[in-house]
Amino acid sequence: MDELILTLSCPDQPGIVHAVSGAIAAAGGNILESQQYGDPVSHRFHMRVHAAGVNDPEVLRQSLTRVAAILDLDWNLESAGHKVRTLIMASKEGHCLSDLLYRAHEGTLPIDVVAVVANHETLRPLADFYNAPFYCIPVTQQTKDSAEEELLGLIDEKDVELVVLARYMQILSDKVCEAMKGRIINIHHSFLPSFKGARPYAQAHARGVKIIGATAHYVTPDLDEGPIIEQDTIRVTHADSVPDFVAQGQDVERRVLSRAVRWHAERRVLLNGHATVVFD
Amino acid sequence: MDELILTLSCPDQPGIVHAVSGAIAAAGGNILESQQYGDPVSHRFHMRVHAAGVNDPEVLRQSLTRVAAILDLDWNLESAGHKVRTLIMASKEGHCLSDLLYRAHEGTLPIDVVAVVANHETLRPLADFYNAPFYCIPVTQQTKDSAEEELLGLIDEKDVELVVLARYMQILSDKVCEAMKGRIINIHHSFLPSFKGARPYAQAHARGVKIIGATAHYVTPDLDEGPIIEQDTIRVTHADSVPDFVAQGQDVERRVLSRAVRWHAERRVLLNGHATVVFD
Amino acid sequence: MDELILTLSCPDQPGIVHAVSGAIAAAGGNILESQQYGDPVSHRFHMRVHAAGVNDPEVLRQSLTRVAAILDLDWNLESAGHKVRTLIMASKEGHCLSDLLYRAHEGTLPIDVVAVVANHETLRPLADFYNAPFYCIPVTQQTKDSAEEELLGLIDEKDVELVVLARYMQILSDKVCEAMKGRIINIHHSFLPSFKGARPYAQAHARGVKIIGATAHYVTPDLDEGPIIEQDTIRVTHADSVPDFVAQGQDVERRVLSRAVRWHAERRVLLNGHATVVFD
Amino acid sequence: MDELILTLSCPDQPGIVHAVSGAIAAAGGNILESQQYGDPVSHRFHMRVHAAGVNDPEVLRQSLTRVAAILDLDWNLESAGHKVRTLIMASKEGHCLSDLLYRAHEGTLPIDVVAVVANHETLRPLADFYNAPFYCIPVTQQTKDSAEEELLGLIDEKDVELVVLARYMQILSDKVCEAMKGRIINIHHSFLPSFKGARPYAQAHARGVKIIGATAHYVTPDLDEGPIIEQDTIRVTHADSVPDFVAQGQDVERRVLSRAVRWHAERRVLLNGHATVVFD
Repeated sequence: MDELILTLSCPDQPGIVHAVSGAIAAAGGNILESQQYGDPVSHRFHMRVHAAGVNDPEVLRQSLTRVAAILDLDWNLESAGHKVRTLIMASKEGHCLSDLLYRAHEGTLPIDVVAVVANHETLRPLADFYNAPFYCIPVTQQTKDSAEEELLGLIDEKDVELVVLARYMQILSDKVCEAMKGRIINIHHSFLPSFKGARPYAQAHARGVKIIGATAHYVTPDLDEGPIIEQDTIRVTHADSVPDFVAQGQDVERRVLSRAVRWHAERRVLLNGHATVVFD
Repeated sequence: MDELILTLSCPDQPGIVHAVSGAIAAAGGNILESQQYGDPVSHRFHMRVHAAGVNDPEVLRQSLTRVAAILDLDWNLESAGHKVRTLIMASKEGHCLSDLLYRAHEGTLPIDVVAVVANHETLRPLADFYNAPFYCIPVTQQTKDSAEEELLGLIDEKDVELVVLARYMQILSDKVCEAMKGRIINIHHSFLPSFKGARPYAQAHARGVKIIGATAHYVTPDLDEGPIIEQDTIRVTHADSVPDFVAQGQDVERRVLSRAVRWHAERRVLLNGHATVVFD
Repeated sequence: MDELILTLSCPDQPGIVHAVSGAIAAAGGNILESQQYGDPVSHRFHMRVHAAGVNDPEVLRQSLTRVAAILDLDWNLESAGHKVRTLIMASKEGHCLSDLLYRAHEGTLPIDVVAVVANHETLRPLADFYNAPFYCIPVTQQTKDSAEEELLGLIDEKDVELVVLARYMQILSDKVCEAMKGRIINIHHSFLPSFKGARPYAQAHARGVKIIGATAHYVTPDLDEGPIIEQDTIRVTHADSVPDFVAQGQDVERRVLSRAVRWHAERRVLLNGHATVVFD
Repeated sequence: MDELILTLSCPDQPGIVHAVSGAIAAAGGNILESQQYGDPVSHRFHMRVHAAGVNDPEVLRQSLTRVAAILDLDWNLESAGHKVRTLIMASKEGHCLSDLLYRAHEGTLPIDVVAVVANHETLRPLADFYNAPFYCIPVTQQTKDSAEEELLGLIDEKDVELVVLARYMQILSDKVCEAMKGRIINIHHSFLPSFKGARPYAQAHARGVKIIGATAHYVTPDLDEGPIIEQDTIRVTHADSVPDFVAQGQDVERRVLSRAVRWHAERRVLLNGHATVVFD
């Protein structure tokens, strides 16, 4: 008898919590933790429930299907212990990849790393060490299309549920973005919307900022404009050079990315238009 | 048709959310925001609901009374716009008092300051400026008992719901602590449980810490041991003297205290044994 | 026998510290605290010295004049206890003004508020309470020029050394910016360079950020582009509305602004091209 | 022609900076960065200088020896590029070890890991992956003495300059503490002086704190009482269990430890009685 995570979004209206909690109670379930949020602007209602004691998830699923038809729910029901099948993409820098693999290995990040894809060979030993299947798919202007086909093939073959861009220095095509909509997380090494695009630390240094940051967001075809999941910042001083920004920023990047991935994997992140609801 | 805040605690059991949301739905209410937490150790369940559209709060009150009897609820239903009748106590230092009065005056802190009590005259002009009734009740070893009587008299006369110790340098008797249990908030100028008692900044400086903090907690007869509501910290360096700690710590103190008071006033803080649940 | 603060900037070259510390030692001075920074990109060297025991500042001043001629120093020597003559500008919102006046009054901010200028009457009582001379100078498209003349007149008459824009909602002309170059500090209610211009909290909310911030910077004719002195940030969540951003952001604004003003007043901020060196 | 780091402490007195900068200038050196701090309580003066362009370090060394005799300097002169020969000790948990090895490998931490010593075999593969020589030295009550002999033998044989206790769960004897005084850094998983000793996260949870922390300090025979190098904190909520504290605390531990190790290795940490001066 598994613990379950239910997430849902729907137009706001009276009676949602009552209907949903009724379905759970009828299935013998007990609510361990629950959070709701009704957006007063978009009038969308969002909810996450962590329940235990449900005798038969199938019965609950049927009740929820009935409720969903009435209340127009987008909903998902998942075992709380489910490890999200994750494909991580990287280039040459390993700080984010190393961190994600370590956490997955230690069991503090509920993901199953089914593949590591990189456009260079550099990180193969790291993936090997953690027994994560490594695929080097080089990308040049000529091979970009075939490289993406190979990637989509892997996603399909491995039943990938989540793609994480762990400082992957290539831009994914709209086709891949669409195919995995809401399921690709990128880490951008700036406090967005400041310093989009290339070399954000150098941009930040040139502007003389006193704080640098990192942003984890869902990838959309619009570069660095996708819904933000998590951000964090760190102080810098006049004495820090661009390489110092890079070195210190790595700490923030991996922290922000691992939180975003954990929250996504624990189904704590719900899309709310162009923004996210994070039930942390 | 007012917005309402419902808070409740009870033994954990299936069906709580369903029963409560049912009562709200039956009264025509719509849940704007809701948070729950079931403590896996103490098996107490805690909930806060912000609802709108309830036609008749009295009807809801009756339904909740029935639910409470069945589920053994401690509960409270309050208008969301209610300003908590607050008595603030201080001594000579005005940074916390000034901050609370300013916020109350600006409307960002939902309290009504019905009295300011101090054991010195120093802060009278500040209270006057914000039109807060000021009472100077000096405290000496001889007058401590009569001073407390005067305080309890004021609390009674003014229907005081919350007492805030805004750097009040006297210790309240067990009698007052008991009389206002769970309704006295103190700011202690250290990151508890480090540096209890007197002169915490000097203690922190002597220990060579790199971070100082402040703690807002409910007052219990056990000095500096009450349930913690909020804490925050700030970095210091070797170059900071004790007076520097004091000056920089004031920022943290007033920030922490005002958050704790706001959360309490918005009914976001629930007691959970010796700790608090904060639905922020 | 006063303590002194010496600040200087010059082209980087060997022997600067030796020459400067020699002048101080020759005048009987002892260095209490000193910081240096040589920018490896611009090749400018910056230094701040806090010295005690100088018998005759005039003798030191003469030695430094000789050193300055050789090493091409921009330098300034000031009594450590000097209170900077400050004119604060505001509009209707008082959180920054209230904070600065409180700190100046308590003695934790080494400024002497010689005037408060606002384009509305709203904040007059606050200024009055702290005995700060208040001048209401309304600004309309027609009166902008004469308003600025009045301002410049005040600056001149009161020997103003520093102008602080404490949420002043008007844009100063290039003329004023030039006249007080490096001596006007503004607080912008965003984490620059994100969300320049009007209504930054609304912009931030629309973008779905998870952290908001504030930036204190020197004012230049280029709006929100001046050298940054200090920044800080605070976490927000999906449940926070634009008014919540505004209310919580006020805390950050006043904290950042008061730090920037304190550092400027303590001569800890040196201009380094388009950025600042902050010897905190 | 190497860059050099000079650090020194001495009784405070006029002329120190002048004498030291004179020695550097006479050796052709240019000061890139320099920081001083005179403790007004202990009357000790501390200084760190980063210099370039010194033609002959031996000449500088001779000048400094002369200055040291006059001013009673404790001083050290080191190549700026020197990698500190470091022995890391751990038990079964690898988050700190993994982080240090990764950073050393990437070149963002100026240490040379000459040995990893653990009282269990668990972490051998991790050390192997980074080519760090791994020594398993089990510790029981019976073998504690011989284990320490083995450790001291390794320290000697490998010319170890720094020992890092990266969540090593054994207590070192006074003998080892004395032998490596000021050269053993420990990470304690609480915000000291709160929650000394065993199971600090469980202690913190029981107290209901809202923030947890970690502390890196030099090891002295007095457990968890050594001079603090660095601390940091992270927010927790009522919904976090002890295992959640542990998991989230790991992030803070490794961040704090790596900073402390980096600052020590860069000679930024000077002992000042029972506290530290950190020129960061």
